[in-house]
Amino acid sequence: MAAIQRKIINDPVYGFITINHPLIFSIISHPYYQRLRRIKQMAMAQLVYPGAVHTRLHHSLGAYHLMNNAVIELKSKGVDISPEEEVAVKAAILLHDVGHGPYSHALEQVLVPDVHHEQLSLQIMHTLNETFNGELTLAIEIFTDQYRKPFLHQLISGQLDVDRMDYLTRDSFYSGVSEGVIGYDRILKMLVVHNGQLMIEEKGIYSVEKFLVARRQMYWQVYLHKTVLAAEKMLVKILERVRAIYRPGDDALYTQSAVDFFLGEFNGVMNAAALDKFCSLDDHDIMHAIKRWSLHPDKALSLLCHGMLNRQLYKTRIQTAPFEPAYIASQLEQISKRFHISAEESSYLCFTGEATNTLYKTIDEKINILFKDGSVRDISEVDNTLIHQNLSAPVKKNYICLFR
Amino acid sequence: MAAIQRKIINDPVYGFITINHPLIFSIISHPYYQRLRRIKQMAMAQLVYPGAVHTRLHHSLGAYHLMNNAVIELKSKGVDISPEEEVAVKAAILLHDVGHGPYSHALEQVLVPDVHHEQLSLQIMHTLNETFNGELTLAIEIFTDQYRKPFLHQLISGQLDVDRMDYLTRDSFYSGVSEGVIGYDRILKMLVVHNGQLMIEEKGIYSVEKFLVARRQMYWQVYLHKTVLAAEKMLVKILERVRAIYRPGDDALYTQSAVDFFLGEFNGVMNAAALDKFCSLDDHDIMHAIKRWSLHPDKALSLLCHGMLNRQLYKTRIQTAPFEPAYIASQLEQISKRFHISAEESSYLCFTGEATNTLYKTIDEKINILFKDGSVRDISEVDNTLIHQNLSAPVKKNYICLFR
Amino acid sequence: MAAIQRKIINDPVYGFITINHPLIFSIISHPYYQRLRRIKQMAMAQLVYPGAVHTRLHHSLGAYHLMNNAVIELKSKGVDISPEEEVAVKAAILLHDVGHGPYSHALEQVLVPDVHHEQLSLQIMHTLNETFNGELTLAIEIFTDQYRKPFLHQLISGQLDVDRMDYLTRDSFYSGVSEGVIGYDRILKMLVVHNGQLMIEEKGIYSVEKFLVARRQMYWQVYLHKTVLAAEKMLVKILERVRAIYRPGDDALYTQSAVDFFLGEFNGVMNAAALDKFCSLDDHDIMHAIKRWSLHPDKALSLLCHGMLNRQLYKTRIQTAPFEPAYIASQLEQISKRFHISAEESSYLCFTGEATNTLYKTIDEKINILFKDGSVRDISEVDNTLIHQNLSAPVKKNYICLFR
Amino acid sequence: MAAIQRKIINDPVYGFITINHPLIFSIISHPYYQRLRRIKQMAMAQLVYPGAVHTRLHHSLGAYHLMNNAVIELKSKGVDISPEEEVAVKAAILLHDVGHGPYSHALEQVLVPDVHHEQLSLQIMHTLNETFNGELTLAIEIFTDQYRKPFLHQLISGQLDVDRMDYLTRDSFYSGVSEGVIGYDRILKMLVVHNGQLMIEEKGIYSVEKFLVARRQMYWQVYLHKTVLAAEKMLVKILERVRAIYRPGDDALYTQSAVDFFLGEFNGVMNAAALDKFCSLDDHDIMHAIKRWSLHPDKALSLLCHGMLNRQLYKTRIQTAPFEPAYIASQLEQISKRFHISAEESSYLCFTGEATNTLYKTIDEKINILFKDGSVRDISEVDNTLIHQNLSAPVKKNYICLFR
Repeated sequence: MAAIQRKIINDPVYGFITINHPLIFSIISHPYYQRLRRIKQMAMAQLVYPGAVHTRLHHSLGAYHLMNNAVIELKSKGVDISPEEEVAVKAAILLHDVGHGPYSHALEQVLVPDVHHEQLSLQIMHTLNETFNGELTLAIEIFTDQYRKPFLHQLISGQLDVDRMDYLTRDSFYSGVSEGVIGYDRILKMLVVHNGQLMIEEKGIYSVEKFLVARRQMYWQVYLHKTVLAAEKMLVKILERVRAIYRPGDDALYTQSAVDFFLGEFNGVMNAAALDKFCSLDDHDIMHAIKRWSLHPDKALSLLCHGMLNRQLYKTRIQTAPFEPAYIASQLEQISKRFHISAEESSYLCFTGEATNTLYKTIDEKINILFKDGSVRDISEVDNTLIHQNLSAPVKKNYICLFR
Repeated sequence: MAAIQRKIINDPVYGFITINHPLIFSIISHPYYQRLRRIKQMAMAQLVYPGAVHTRLHHSLGAYHLMNNAVIELKSKGVDISPEEEVAVKAAILLHDVGHGPYSHALEQVLVPDVHHEQLSLQIMHTLNETFNGELTLAIEIFTDQYRKPFLHQLISGQLDVDRMDYLTRDSFYSGVSEGVIGYDRILKMLVVHNGQLMIEEKGIYSVEKFLVARRQMYWQVYLHKTVLAAEKMLVKILERVRAIYRPGDDALYTQSAVDFFLGEFNGVMNAAALDKFCSLDDHDIMHAIKRWSLHPDKALSLLCHGMLNRQLYKTRIQTAPFEPAYIASQLEQISKRFHISAEESSYLCFTGEATNTLYKTIDEKINILFKDGSVRDISEVDNTLIHQNLSAPVKKNYICLFR
Repeated sequence: MAAIQRKIINDPVYGFITINHPLIFSIISHPYYQRLRRIKQMAMAQLVYPGAVHTRLHHSLGAYHLMNNAVIELKSKGVDISPEEEVAVKAAILLHDVGHGPYSHALEQVLVPDVHHEQLSLQIMHTLNETFNGELTLAIEIFTDQYRKPFLHQLISGQLDVDRMDYLTRDSFYSGVSEGVIGYDRILKMLVVHNGQLMIEEKGIYSVEKFLVARRQMYWQVYLHKTVLAAEKMLVKILERVRAIYRPGDDALYTQSAVDFFLGEFNGVMNAAALDKFCSLDDHDIMHAIKRWSLHPDKALSLLCHGMLNRQLYKTRIQTAPFEPAYIASQLEQISKRFHISAEESSYLCFTGEATNTLYKTIDEKINILFKDGSVRDISEVDNTLIHQNLSAPVKKNYICLFR
Repeated sequence: MAAIQRKIINDPVYGFITINHPLIFSIISHPYYQRLRRIKQMAMAQLVYPGAVHTRLHHSLGAYHLMNNAVIELKSKGVDISPEEEVAVKAAILLHDVGHGPYSHALEQVLVPDVHHEQLSLQIMHTLNETFNGELTLAIEIFTDQYRKPFLHQLISGQLDVDRMDYLTRDSFYSGVSEGVIGYDRILKMLVVHNGQLMIEEKGIYSVEKFLVARRQMYWQVYLHKTVLAAEKMLVKILERVRAIYRPGDDALYTQSAVDFFLGEFNGVMNAAALDKFCSLDDHDIMHAIKRWSLHPDKALSLLCHGMLNRQLYKTRIQTAPFEPAYIASQLEQISKRFHISAEESSYLCFTGEATNTLYKTIDEKINILFKDGSVRDISEVDNTLIHQNLSAPVKKNYICLFR
């Protein structure tokens, strides 16, 4: 009998993660996947929550672990999942974030504008599928919701998918924000498949309620924390500034990495060559660039880069109403005087914008509850629940960032 | 009344860390300290334990928190600690690791040979003391054990100092290796000062015993894990290779950071200018360099750099006896043939060495137990204890690393 | 120098609880306090949550620990609390539940009708105050809100008192219902005193929100869980049945404890003698009585007692609307036939009632938030909050209990 | 398709315990099993560790949960375990402690002398097997090590059985003694079957080492804590005193429970009738008896019972050497004078004895480690291990108990 290759990985969140299928090993060993080891899951949040330095690799391993548990649970309830489907859905969850770049939510807008990370994940999955001789075909079908069993897709991407379950659990764990803790194990136990759709047993209502409240709390306390916001905006402004002053041959802007390509030659078409460059990018390229640009003669650029390195971030205020144009103008003028820079340069050091708690994922899907009498209702229609307009509606707030 | 500046920081390990003194704020805000945010505490261990990505900044904040608790505890037992001493001992613990470079234990030997990180910490503390107009003078006295109350130094550096308590607790927490968990809170409750020396109450014997066992387990399971060892040796070999092939003007070796200086011009004298360069180094410089060198024409170098990026590490074996010269020779020959490289180059891909569990800190100090009858004994002399030769003696093991 | 008596107690929830004042030692050593060791905090909940067997003694020690932390926190913020006030508020919280009887919420109604446990706590505190030569006078003033610093009373009894913080935390911990976890440490850090009143800093809004959601979840998942409800109602019905069939001289009803007195001679006046008997009651008396009554010839009584011992509880249904009289009548008839008992006896085996989530404490007080600009608002008036009518309004539900 | 009955139970230690087989439901519902709900796992330890009030029912559910995991793990490694064997080994672990009486380790010696709880467990299993029409036959074969697959028995009773894993984990959790935490999940992952015997993979050596150290720590810190010892001896002395003064017709000794039978008529033969009485005994009977006896005219008896109720325990000293007869005699005399009691009575208030850390389970079995090369060695023979004479040898200590 051939020995089954089997590996366990220590995880402070779940204890141990077990790997026991050749395809899963192949994915994890691939350089495109190993790259995720060098991309922080929570980007700049570590400037406020010093523990929040876990990686996208760790998150996707965690989501894979929850998928293992979900599959075991559903099978134990009589749901038909074949061995092929099982490995495919696990492969898909492992790869669901493989298209993320460094500081993704901040940089998607500037570095690879108009290319969403989910598209990139899919593009990379196709590339890997060639390498793996078609072994990812079923995974891709599930990932793109073209497979005949929609619940498998819903486990990967839906209101209660293992992706969200892991990122809330893990982000809460690593940041130390206990308000974000969810009862992922109880939610998993409450999963059922009814008419081919993923649902939650009636008994799980309170766990779902807690999940939604926890997510909301993570948005306001962590993802949209005003200092985290300040740091992410600072990074965006740095790259926008580089793009604005970019001239071929300005050696002091070059950084010896694919960042140069995406800020320079890149024409917006993500062909095979561009994709390969993209798959070389990680947090180190960005931070190296910032360290280098902190020495650049452009004042706005070097100020911002120094600020980022030494955690001298924008001062940020958040309010419901938009900021008065006169107020903004006076702030811009002060900054212009203080740093002896032009109005145009000042616009990188002082600006306003809108933040919304739907930044990460929209809340447009339903969470179906399966009642004991066989009826199905969305959780927002359940009696005596917290889940109402306030919770599910997107909330917009206005912010101003000021560099001092 | 002027408001006291006060900040709390979320920490998944201890809950909340409170900062409430201007000097502590100044230290934390300084670029030299913020740099620690970009240096991983456990270096390459994340290649085996994906969660082990916490930073030196986080560790030193944690040690600072434990120092707060230790001081409260000792004061509640009537130990005389003045407000000045209190802030000094906290400043000293915050800065105890400020002299660490990136991947410190691996790189100290190659990047800044013959300069120990504790010396560098002290040198940096002196520099900061000038910036802070002498406010660190008492902290430096305590750090260097020249102050008249030795127990303050022992809290920073001794067998049961808050540095070790935090790094064991934190490394165990982030790696998920539960065997390393210690009862730090109980040890803190058991601290006493007797004849000016830091000691442990009799009731704390089992907690100390557990502390020593946990440390031992962390050595063998984590710090000296054979794959962690392989990665750290790989990094050392990469830098040694760069140094060996270094020629001024080889642009493909240059990396736009202080790494260039330390592998090139640096003459071994850590003067003010060199120190400032040192204080710009962080993990990003090393990883950026590796990414760049992975494209260098030198085959040994590019092989190792690719290996590091894609987690294709040395295969390592560990055994008590040294490896046979004939065996080593045959391995070297195989490697030379396989990669078409010279014997000299092969020596970077195959080599042997000795690992010892005293790598981090030597175990030459005593842990004094204060008995109820007033007598003092070292824990190793206590009846019926686990602490004996096996535990305290250094253990040497032989390893071989092979690149395949 | 006289040694300070000092003791630390292991607590799985908080780590260690420190006792270091003679009055606190005296209270804890008193038989009236030690009695709390024999009264389960969560009464019958262990029939659903097997871990929920912690005691009222443990809860009150926990609340005392949180009070220690709250006092340290407030003092560090400049709030004036004298040593006498400090020990008084700690003594008061230790004793706040000393008037609880066994299975308190169920039995208060039957065993000592019209005597509320808070009244009894106060009566016992007065008794102890005589024993302790007036040392509890200040504690009693604070407990009864007659002291000139209302925030001290609010720490003991208010919307965010340490009593609630501990019972939510501890009940959640021991039952394993993670939905009830609150961030007690963060709430403590956010406490402030403004105009003599206890308030929460603006930054603590989300922690308070989570506290309220957690409490709500504990009500529906634990305190009002239908099987827990069934068990508590069963206990009530057992005692009501004993009272109904009570005849002096029926030896099979006597149980060798103060239960006999309270079901027999007790005239409703809680004089010194009655109070002393009350202070001998604990869970063992009730369970012993049930074991004894399970052998009594009265069929309804023995059926219910056997059911309680062997966890054959009422089947319970909960619904919003009241149950139809015809339905209830048919159920009663079935039971009467099945067990060959009269309609009167059947009424102990089948009945309906109303449950409300305000059972434990009413939500009539405000939670004041202190904003950075110095203004104070109740949390329900804060923008974009979950705390609205649904959450704060009492919810009534109808239940039916059936013994089969 | 018939619905599978399925229940999940919240457990603060493991999260959720799943029950999904009719036989398991039947066992758990049986009054003999429900009785374990009323017996504390750690007996008197709650007098020192107030959280240690969990029950034998909870422990056996926990051991059952670990057995589930162990079976899943072994099956995933290719070990052949049939569905029948699976349910049998789970039934056996659920029932392994069903023969425990209240305060078992203390009372086995006095209440049912010469009857070991494992014998009683077996006897009860046979009784239940009749009730369940032989469904427990295989479970009994495994429990008594008569089945052809010895590893199944070893999972129930061996050096690394799930019984020990659960009680160490649970006792540590509930008492808050973190030194007793073991890595049960890692040990489970490391289990293998080799030549029909249960073993541990080489990689699990450190987890086993930690398990042994943790057990040792629990002995000295908890199970043999001198105050716990004092309380257990006090209970033994109370029962011995009752037996010594027992006269038929002394109504003040009668307690309305099976305690009366076992201290009176019981002739030492555990026939069916006696067994049924034994299966009615629980903690409430003992505590009720103590409350009653505290009013008995016998002075030694009432003193000890009052002491037990109010936590006025023996003062205990522990030392390596036996106590001097002269010292004991003088203590006895003092006590005799102080309480005006005879020398015979005093012997219940002052006595010496020997405690040994093998009280619970002897350490006579081996822990086999399976090395990668296929060889098997006992852990004590492995290089560089802590497991040596000091750890494995029984340690005897002398104690004296004094009532003051």
